[in-house]
Amino acid sequence: MSHDVRNRLSSIRRAFHRRPEPGWCEFRTTARIVEEIRRIGVDDLAIGREALSSEHRMAVPPEETLAEWHDRAAAAGVAPEILELTAGGHTGAVATVRNGEGPTVGLRVDMDGVSIPESEAAGHRPADEGFGSEHEGYMHACGHDAHATVALGTLEAVKASDFEGTFRVFFQPAEEVAGGGKPLAEGGYVDDVDELLAFHLGLGRPTGTVVANATRPLAMAHINATFEGASAHAGKEPSGGTNAMQAMTTAVQNAYGIARHGDGLTRVNFGRVEGGSASNVIAEEITLDGEVRGETTALMEYMRTELERVLYAAAELHECDVVIRRISESIRVDGDPTLAELVEGVARTVPSIDEVVPEAPLEASEDATFLMDRVHGNGGRALYLIVGADHPTSHHTPTFDLDERALDVGVELLTEVVSALGADRS
Amino acid sequence: MSHDVRNRLSSIRRAFHRRPEPGWCEFRTTARIVEEIRRIGVDDLAIGREALSSEHRMAVPPEETLAEWHDRAAAAGVAPEILELTAGGHTGAVATVRNGEGPTVGLRVDMDGVSIPESEAAGHRPADEGFGSEHEGYMHACGHDAHATVALGTLEAVKASDFEGTFRVFFQPAEEVAGGGKPLAEGGYVDDVDELLAFHLGLGRPTGTVVANATRPLAMAHINATFEGASAHAGKEPSGGTNAMQAMTTAVQNAYGIARHGDGLTRVNFGRVEGGSASNVIAEEITLDGEVRGETTALMEYMRTELERVLYAAAELHECDVVIRRISESIRVDGDPTLAELVEGVARTVPSIDEVVPEAPLEASEDATFLMDRVHGNGGRALYLIVGADHPTSHHTPTFDLDERALDVGVELLTEVVSALGADRS
Amino acid sequence: MSHDVRNRLSSIRRAFHRRPEPGWCEFRTTARIVEEIRRIGVDDLAIGREALSSEHRMAVPPEETLAEWHDRAAAAGVAPEILELTAGGHTGAVATVRNGEGPTVGLRVDMDGVSIPESEAAGHRPADEGFGSEHEGYMHACGHDAHATVALGTLEAVKASDFEGTFRVFFQPAEEVAGGGKPLAEGGYVDDVDELLAFHLGLGRPTGTVVANATRPLAMAHINATFEGASAHAGKEPSGGTNAMQAMTTAVQNAYGIARHGDGLTRVNFGRVEGGSASNVIAEEITLDGEVRGETTALMEYMRTELERVLYAAAELHECDVVIRRISESIRVDGDPTLAELVEGVARTVPSIDEVVPEAPLEASEDATFLMDRVHGNGGRALYLIVGADHPTSHHTPTFDLDERALDVGVELLTEVVSALGADRS
Amino acid sequence: MSHDVRNRLSSIRRAFHRRPEPGWCEFRTTARIVEEIRRIGVDDLAIGREALSSEHRMAVPPEETLAEWHDRAAAAGVAPEILELTAGGHTGAVATVRNGEGPTVGLRVDMDGVSIPESEAAGHRPADEGFGSEHEGYMHACGHDAHATVALGTLEAVKASDFEGTFRVFFQPAEEVAGGGKPLAEGGYVDDVDELLAFHLGLGRPTGTVVANATRPLAMAHINATFEGASAHAGKEPSGGTNAMQAMTTAVQNAYGIARHGDGLTRVNFGRVEGGSASNVIAEEITLDGEVRGETTALMEYMRTELERVLYAAAELHECDVVIRRISESIRVDGDPTLAELVEGVARTVPSIDEVVPEAPLEASEDATFLMDRVHGNGGRALYLIVGADHPTSHHTPTFDLDERALDVGVELLTEVVSALGADRS
Repeated sequence: MSHDVRNRLSSIRRAFHRRPEPGWCEFRTTARIVEEIRRIGVDDLAIGREALSSEHRMAVPPEETLAEWHDRAAAAGVAPEILELTAGGHTGAVATVRNGEGPTVGLRVDMDGVSIPESEAAGHRPADEGFGSEHEGYMHACGHDAHATVALGTLEAVKASDFEGTFRVFFQPAEEVAGGGKPLAEGGYVDDVDELLAFHLGLGRPTGTVVANATRPLAMAHINATFEGASAHAGKEPSGGTNAMQAMTTAVQNAYGIARHGDGLTRVNFGRVEGGSASNVIAEEITLDGEVRGETTALMEYMRTELERVLYAAAELHECDVVIRRISESIRVDGDPTLAELVEGVARTVPSIDEVVPEAPLEASEDATFLMDRVHGNGGRALYLIVGADHPTSHHTPTFDLDERALDVGVELLTEVVSALGADRS
Repeated sequence: MSHDVRNRLSSIRRAFHRRPEPGWCEFRTTARIVEEIRRIGVDDLAIGREALSSEHRMAVPPEETLAEWHDRAAAAGVAPEILELTAGGHTGAVATVRNGEGPTVGLRVDMDGVSIPESEAAGHRPADEGFGSEHEGYMHACGHDAHATVALGTLEAVKASDFEGTFRVFFQPAEEVAGGGKPLAEGGYVDDVDELLAFHLGLGRPTGTVVANATRPLAMAHINATFEGASAHAGKEPSGGTNAMQAMTTAVQNAYGIARHGDGLTRVNFGRVEGGSASNVIAEEITLDGEVRGETTALMEYMRTELERVLYAAAELHECDVVIRRISESIRVDGDPTLAELVEGVARTVPSIDEVVPEAPLEASEDATFLMDRVHGNGGRALYLIVGADHPTSHHTPTFDLDERALDVGVELLTEVVSALGADRS
Repeated sequence: MSHDVRNRLSSIRRAFHRRPEPGWCEFRTTARIVEEIRRIGVDDLAIGREALSSEHRMAVPPEETLAEWHDRAAAAGVAPEILELTAGGHTGAVATVRNGEGPTVGLRVDMDGVSIPESEAAGHRPADEGFGSEHEGYMHACGHDAHATVALGTLEAVKASDFEGTFRVFFQPAEEVAGGGKPLAEGGYVDDVDELLAFHLGLGRPTGTVVANATRPLAMAHINATFEGASAHAGKEPSGGTNAMQAMTTAVQNAYGIARHGDGLTRVNFGRVEGGSASNVIAEEITLDGEVRGETTALMEYMRTELERVLYAAAELHECDVVIRRISESIRVDGDPTLAELVEGVARTVPSIDEVVPEAPLEASEDATFLMDRVHGNGGRALYLIVGADHPTSHHTPTFDLDERALDVGVELLTEVVSALGADRS
Repeated sequence: MSHDVRNRLSSIRRAFHRRPEPGWCEFRTTARIVEEIRRIGVDDLAIGREALSSEHRMAVPPEETLAEWHDRAAAAGVAPEILELTAGGHTGAVATVRNGEGPTVGLRVDMDGVSIPESEAAGHRPADEGFGSEHEGYMHACGHDAHATVALGTLEAVKASDFEGTFRVFFQPAEEVAGGGKPLAEGGYVDDVDELLAFHLGLGRPTGTVVANATRPLAMAHINATFEGASAHAGKEPSGGTNAMQAMTTAVQNAYGIARHGDGLTRVNFGRVEGGSASNVIAEEITLDGEVRGETTALMEYMRTELERVLYAAAELHECDVVIRRISESIRVDGDPTLAELVEGVARTVPSIDEVVPEAPLEASEDATFLMDRVHGNGGRALYLIVGADHPTSHHTPTFDLDERALDVGVELLTEVVSALGADRS
């Protein structure tokens, strides 16, 4: 890879890094991606609402949040055309190049940041080298800035390669909240994909290592529950209301006690709670954010069914109501083993890769599985891989950063794999 | 009572009503009270930090809250002298008139608003007649605007009366949070009081009714508890952290289950909760606001001891820490029966009063009890009475309002009682 | 009182003491009472099922328990006539003497023992003097042996006195389980009673003290709840059953957390639990014994309603069933104040009484209240009094015993009161 | 296999079936085993306390239970020699035959029944054919009767075979309570074993199927916890004691909520509870039986550590004590893969076997793992296999029975494997 390409990848990644945007608010990120795609030149480009199924979106933030980020993007000079296509939480893009006859190969990446304030301490490279987050309270702490960059680099490289077939890149919004995979899978652009690749950088694997088949993502569902009681004065009439605080605590205690399952691993967590007014008032309304996971989609559904039952019964136990919202979800899909073998073989030929792990558990949840599931359903093959990248601290911490050499590794590997897939069919 | 006086009382009360300020932030309210006191003319006036013991204050809000309200008062033109004396949460005032030899009679009122947004609906008199709250989110929803007004009216009337003795009015801040009674009791101005009167308007009693002795206030304590765990990824390492959410729910469940007591009534409530970050993160920090009450001070202390034990043990059960802050408290003190008899007798002679209830439970907590306790300890007599006032909806609701005729009843009754107390000793 | 009478009272009491029988199993005790009544000679005697309403009985033990005690009584030589009248849990008796025209005065006592093993240690008088319990595991640990004795003594004395009117003694079974008061109240013999007296010995009051009006018994209800789940292997299919253990713990935790009430004191307790089979089996069935109390009957009913709601909802939360049985209950009734005044006056004239307390709280629950309620409802007067009696340790402990001088005090006081009531009407 | 042998195996199994004995009480079963071993003739026979390490026994029942079953065996005519060697809970036996030079091959079986009452309904073969349990409340509901039978059949067959080496059979007591594996592993007889075989019949696999390597038994620990509070009268002084009922429920609720673990499957259960005295008494003592499991021994230990912490903290939260007893445990050990290959190969040659599954999860816990672990530690190989056997209903149900053709399959397979192991080394 040339120095120029390397520098461009680094520069693009750092531009993304400076402006992290949360799920469904990636207005400026989408604009920057479109700018690069147009520079590269593609045969087809779907932007925002053109690329996905609006009605299948999940975990869309409130109108005011969307408007705030949209306004910010407008103020930063994002073109009206893009602002319009992405308005109301319709971010993302799908780009297609056609290099003659051959299979349709897809590459899916994510692009959203997370609500973690980035470290400004010395020693944190983005701080040291001036590309730290300019959006206070938000950060690219999971490497999606690099994911989008690798996809752009691969797009450019594949276009210039001898690959024969159609290559399509899916820039998926809202991965962190498991909100964007489903609407992209329903958006139509996956339907003719024969081979689908998805990947994650880092995940504890060093630069130069590749996991050809990252399997067994936990299926997951996010849930929001609001208990609604009736307030009363805690001193004068302690039994006069219905106590949302007691309903909430009964629900949480029993949710963690949902029976483990004989069929495999499960998870449950309530990670945020807020409500009530003052110490001397029976709490009227309390909101919980929770999630469940399972080693299979069925186990996730078992947990979600149980969780919802617990929430309703706990509300009833304290004569409260509870409004449950299913925020988002992701399913369990494993990669195709024959495609994994192909990737493993190609990876062993890439000079910048020094270790290839045939298969390892992903140890996370992923909504790329919706796209994978669609491809498998259509008779195609899909695969999720891990491209190692040194990172000083864990994903989702304020000092997360990635070794940028992994950008090159990613582009090289994926370009070779795409080429091989073209060759494979021809 | 003349039309002029009536109009002035109404006008003062409405001025207070327009600008409710929360506990320890009554900067503008204090200024308005001082303005009236100076118009009336008194022999001694202690303002803010002159009137109370700074170190005994409880439930003082954070610096930034104090500063915000202080700035607002400054912007409204409050005089620098008052701003300085009250700065940092030292609101309130004590005014004294000396009408010759005789006993020292005290009258204590409160003056703070509550954090309830006032109704702007038609039919709510403050909205209809243009004296609704101008401080968004805050409201005089418990009648303390009227209490301060009655005190000013009584001060003026007593000064002009044939009462022989010393009359002192305590304008106490921060009653709603049980924060101001103790520092006022410790401020020195109660020490020579022979007879102390405190009162509340309304409380479900109609205009024209008086309860001579409102007894058995529940002793109360407010507590804040912050559970501190360690976050971890709920999917990848659900056992990797220590779960503040589970610690909190265990505490709340068991706190409501603290054993009832053979010696009398108890209360416990957690009225507000907040914490955690996201559904997929083991919650690191959660804060609770709670309170306990008891029919006696000992029962309140039993409940507080138990509550604190439950909080510590629940934290330990989940390997979390918990930081407990005792926010404020009030004690149980009953009025003096001989003083109650005197008030009952006087009340029966006041034309605007048509029903006199000798004694009834207060059915609330009160920190006037700190002043009452000090007076009793010095050999004096203290009494808490209720002056009835029609009110369309309950105290602490957005449509609370008071029948202003009760202002006159209050001034008339209290003036007569003060006179009688002067006569009583002479 | 003559030595002979004293000795006979002591001897009768000790006979009862040797053979304590639990509620509804007082077959031998009933026989002994009938024997004494016949010795005294009365105008009317109702035994067992003649005296009470069978269908209103509460807390009747299982058939096999009844049969066991019935057989034991038969083996001890109880006459067939009595065995037949009391069979199936129909113990107790009502005796009536008619001494000419005058009011009908009733006296109600209880007669059952409790399931506490009696101490055999030296220093415990029943052990030292050879009248300790011969029924292993059971004991007269609350003084009902003495109550029945005082009633027999009073019956004999009243018959011989100048009292004009009708005197009726109610020997009530099953007081400890609150099971016998209601069926006796429904049995017809209370319907023409003008004045009803009930009493308890001891209760922390020394010999020579009398409380003329023991008021405010807590209303009470006993409940049994059986959770029914479905077992499964805890290792292989932990989610395969429905967990009665978790349902039970959710119920208990939330039952203790039932909101305290603004109207007064409440109580809740679960005192016994049993169920499940082995550690590796999801528990299929668990049984709880619980109770609620309230300062008023309405408060008891509030607690019982809440408790039942909690039980049902906790079962539902864990997909179990719960079968709730209302075992028994007692209501709150206070004594008539004019009758209390009369008793107080009489008590002051009895030489063996040196202190008369006009009124004090009973600090316990009592099902004599059902009879009192019936009398009040018919326009009569009822009263519950305490006849002091030194006792070395608390009621319901293995070393409980009573100063037998209190037997004399009781008989003397009650005889005088009955006489006065006769005189009172004539 | 000859008809005679088949009939003898069936007859032996049915003899065991008629007299199921719980763990450590297999006095008569041991005697019957010894009788058969002596009939066969062996070179070495260790009985009861000779065969195991007394001090390492776990889950030994109380003295009176041991005595009851010991007396029953004596009454049935068990020889004094055996009664003496097994007294006090020292059941089991180890038999050794030496067939010349060669490896030492071990076979371990269990022999205890479970506390389930056996069905007497028509259609249940033991009932129909007259070999149902004669020990009321106990039953061979897991097939250990057949396990011991297969071991005896194999012993006889191996002795008569051309196997060269030493063959040793371990008749292990108390498998159901995970109590016997450890003391047998510590008893010395495993120390020179080169190849160890253990097996289970049935487990949902049909007759004719064999699983060569049943892996991943869940590690397990049984625990007993007794909460000790202080009783008080629930009506008079509800706060006077310390409530073992609330401590227990807090413990159970939080135990089920112990965090799932990122490293694999966990389990927790409380299967039995008992305590308290009556509904109106604060519960003084409550006992729980519980267990934890984990996919690995470390995960089991994680769960046990957490469970114990929860128990202690729940006790503290309610000012109770808790006494925790570790009853028994088993560890996770997987079979040796090379030994599994050998068994798989041999199984494919046995005519009565029509399906061989190379590996499958055991889906249960097993304390044979203690012996396996010892053999592995000494450089040997150990394996746990499943010999399929049709069974009409699940293990541990009142109508459990086994297809007796599986006895033959078991003997044939094991004899061949032992022979192969002899050959393998020579």
